[in-house]
Amino acid sequence: MDEVDPGDFRTRVRQSFGRQAFMETLGADLTRVEHAMVEIEMPFDAKLTQQHGFLHAGVISAALDAACGYAAYTVIDPDASILTIEFKVNLLSPGRGERFLFRGEITKPGSTIIVADGRAYALTNGPAKLIASMSGSMMVIRGREDVTG
Amino acid sequence: MDEVDPGDFRTRVRQSFGRQAFMETLGADLTRVEHAMVEIEMPFDAKLTQQHGFLHAGVISAALDAACGYAAYTVIDPDASILTIEFKVNLLSPGRGERFLFRGEITKPGSTIIVADGRAYALTNGPAKLIASMSGSMMVIRGREDVTG
Amino acid sequence: MDEVDPGDFRTRVRQSFGRQAFMETLGADLTRVEHAMVEIEMPFDAKLTQQHGFLHAGVISAALDAACGYAAYTVIDPDASILTIEFKVNLLSPGRGERFLFRGEITKPGSTIIVADGRAYALTNGPAKLIASMSGSMMVIRGREDVTG
Amino acid sequence: MDEVDPGDFRTRVRQSFGRQAFMETLGADLTRVEHAMVEIEMPFDAKLTQQHGFLHAGVISAALDAACGYAAYTVIDPDASILTIEFKVNLLSPGRGERFLFRGEITKPGSTIIVADGRAYALTNGPAKLIASMSGSMMVIRGREDVTG
Repeated sequence: MDEVDPGDFRTRVRQSFGRQAFMETLGADLTRVEHAMVEIEMPFDAKLTQQHGFLHAGVISAALDAACGYAAYTVIDPDASILTIEFKVNLLSPGRGERFLFRGEITKPGSTIIVADGRAYALTNGPAKLIASMSGSMMVIRGREDVTG
Repeated sequence: MDEVDPGDFRTRVRQSFGRQAFMETLGADLTRVEHAMVEIEMPFDAKLTQQHGFLHAGVISAALDAACGYAAYTVIDPDASILTIEFKVNLLSPGRGERFLFRGEITKPGSTIIVADGRAYALTNGPAKLIASMSGSMMVIRGREDVTG
Repeated sequence: MDEVDPGDFRTRVRQSFGRQAFMETLGADLTRVEHAMVEIEMPFDAKLTQQHGFLHAGVISAALDAACGYAAYTVIDPDASILTIEFKVNLLSPGRGERFLFRGEITKPGSTIIVADGRAYALTNGPAKLIASMSGSMMVIRGREDVTG
Repeated sequence: MDEVDPGDFRTRVRQSFGRQAFMETLGADLTRVEHAMVEIEMPFDAKLTQQHGFLHAGVISAALDAACGYAAYTVIDPDASILTIEFKVNLLSPGRGERFLFRGEITKPGSTIIVADGRAYALTNGPAKLIASMSGSMMVIRGREDVTG
């Protein structure tokens, strides 16, 4: 039970993810937390679409940013926090699918800046289809009262 | 009344925006549509937040992408449509505010690729505070049945 | 012998690379051309440095852009050409080393837009050190007289 | 005479620019240094071209990065230095022209991260033509022996 060790990164990631109200709005679940890698999944929902009925680029960005940001959480000190500085998203295929998987991985850890890459996949029948990629920079935050956890 | 001229870009933008279900999920309104420039506004809502209580970067991305994309709609033929290829967002200040304004403007029109820049502002008392910037590439789509309007 | 088949992608890539005068200015060599993957190498040269004596970010960008662009050439028709639309570079470590390796790989082929990812490494003694990553969008060009080969 | 005041930002920028050997390789000159804004100019040179004879995207990136980076130098303490974390470049038109102008401007100053935007123009006869835009993040560096000035 990682619930009993607050220093454990899985616990910290799950607690912080649980405070991201927007993830609940999106219907997103944290499905995997490993050292330097986090996965988030989400079912398709018509309320998350753009004008052609595909998953909105902003939804894809939100979930990839969360996956990359929480991947960064797994490699920092327990008392530090993470803020995203910037990210770029390439939209590779329309966001069509029954479910979506978002994976964030650390490309370069660091004491101040952490760089992560993310990939989004549509899951239906057959093989997962790559629909977007992200590269982002995260800043490690310490000692700021408004940015904890 | 632009409602009677389907070729009018304001009508087309409003109709397409109305089909972006995710904008309604975000509580976002289309508040200004000019040639090569679109503005979207949104009140703060706790269901749109990240773990520190700020507006989620994904919400900012969604609204900036929509503002940039619809700015692109204002400069294309009535029978064409727009898909975002990629964007980058720089998060400049935490998303704190009572309301938020997202402006997209065309930097470079084109027959195939349109480049747009966006800026997001927090509105409370006092001057608008710049919280994010976006640069994105949009592709003009013609003749695809699944990408119209 | 690919020299005798002008439709061969290796020949086309080498011929086009040979016309990139800037690659000669940088002292860059095309060292590997595979389907969807190209590598370029370059020795350190003091004339390529920024103010702290590291390899200039612009040099890294030039070589990664060339590696990504030529990776795109390997997946297009012989009579098409490639122009870069955009790229983002994350600078992960200072550009210190005796030699540098730049690899570009296709993430998403396409008839109009090709997305590629690149990685730059410093080579000295010991393992290659990742110094930069790129993600970029390339446009496939056909029928434009000023953009051939 | 700013040459006599080493704390003056114009002096520091000129001295640091003078140490960027790659700027000399490109034939680039520092033509304007204002608070939060720097301009660099460069004549067209066939040795700086890509395969179609246009200015190489890497040259454009190098000069925009330098313009943005030195714009950041103008807003930091005299004993601090700047390293680029990341940038994105959108290539808007082919790099054709007799001369090129690169302007970097600070979008968001900061004690750790500075965000700058840049624009590149081709200058021939007639109005300047916008050929590229950049957005980049710079990190303020203090107390590192290998990164000074």
